[in-house]
Amino acid sequence: MRRVALALVHHPVLDREGSIVTSAITNLDVHDIARSAMTYGLPRYYWVHPIAAQRLLVERITSHWIEGSGARRIPDRVAPMRLVRVVSSLQDAIINLSEGQEVEVWTTGAGSSQSFESLSHGSASVALCKPGPPVLIVFGTGWGLHQSVHDRASKRLEAIHSAGPEGFNHLSVRAAAAILLDRLLGEYSRGKHARHEQPIW
Amino acid sequence: MRRVALALVHHPVLDREGSIVTSAITNLDVHDIARSAMTYGLPRYYWVHPIAAQRLLVERITSHWIEGSGARRIPDRVAPMRLVRVVSSLQDAIINLSEGQEVEVWTTGAGSSQSFESLSHGSASVALCKPGPPVLIVFGTGWGLHQSVHDRASKRLEAIHSAGPEGFNHLSVRAAAAILLDRLLGEYSRGKHARHEQPIW
Repeated sequence: MRRVALALVHHPVLDREGSIVTSAITNLDVHDIARSAMTYGLPRYYWVHPIAAQRLLVERITSHWIEGSGARRIPDRVAPMRLVRVVSSLQDAIINLSEGQEVEVWTTGAGSSQSFESLSHGSASVALCKPGPPVLIVFGTGWGLHQSVHDRASKRLEAIHSAGPEGFNHLSVRAAAAILLDRLLGEYSRGKHARHEQPIW
Repeated sequence: MRRVALALVHHPVLDREGSIVTSAITNLDVHDIARSAMTYGLPRYYWVHPIAAQRLLVERITSHWIEGSGARRIPDRVAPMRLVRVVSSLQDAIINLSEGQEVEVWTTGAGSSQSFESLSHGSASVALCKPGPPVLIVFGTGWGLHQSVHDRASKRLEAIHSAGPEGFNHLSVRAAAAILLDRLLGEYSRGKHARHEQPIW
């Protein structure tokens, strides 16, 4: 089983017109994604922001829940908050995760996969079960990661396709991260691949 | 394919000590779950609260995104917000969904399934593909639904089991709703059942 961590990037991401922006902290991104990361056994969740004041704010939030009054009020929040690492760039996240090893970076996005080659969730789940370098799964805030982040990644994961008639694919990043962790690392999906890999004669 | 809707209940739910409470609105519960509901083709998302002032607040939030300046700023938010129905009780949600038919109520919770019979996500997904009455999937805020809600339900869905070594099962309700919709209604899971139901000779 490979070591898998998650990164939430606030720059460079897109705004609704496709321009490059730096997005602001959303408090529940810290909580929800830390809780999902903990549920799926991730050792780290990197919260990536280039602005020092925003990083300080998240450091304060996590301290409140790890050592402050939040920890006494809701002890279940301590363990997931301990997974959070506040860093200023994706490169810092990669260095922290690497421990001297190469790191594979897998990016995510809601965009249609017609213009690029993408890694299916089934293949990704199988790949994570086999030996290999650590994997950092990268999510973008705002309207998603800028193309330059995808360009430097090892792989880009396929989008979560809409199951509805409208083809609506505007999940929150909190929901998208939860669904992807479940597909890639959840026992429910693992069962699927286990069956899938069995000989059928 | 059966009609499926989702309800988010704020009373009667549990607090961290297991007492019955009424929880307050969390703004992102409205947004995130509406967006997940839209992605998975649900026709309605019931936001259930017994207190009129809290319902009014959510009505204002949805109007802002359906007709107000929010709609002009982020048009993608209009369609999911239109799914939201603000009601004062689960009974009102059931009546609204029923359109004269019986409704099956499926409750959810993070509790261990050893003390009750639960419906597995695989069986639930298969059941939703077959003809039958509409299904209302019910989520609780706070520390989850009070036992009385489970007692009156048609079925209780199994919990989302932790895939991590710590057995941590404290997902946010936003993440849990997203994962369950994906397991029950997503194409990724459907593929699984399609394969599963094929003869293997």
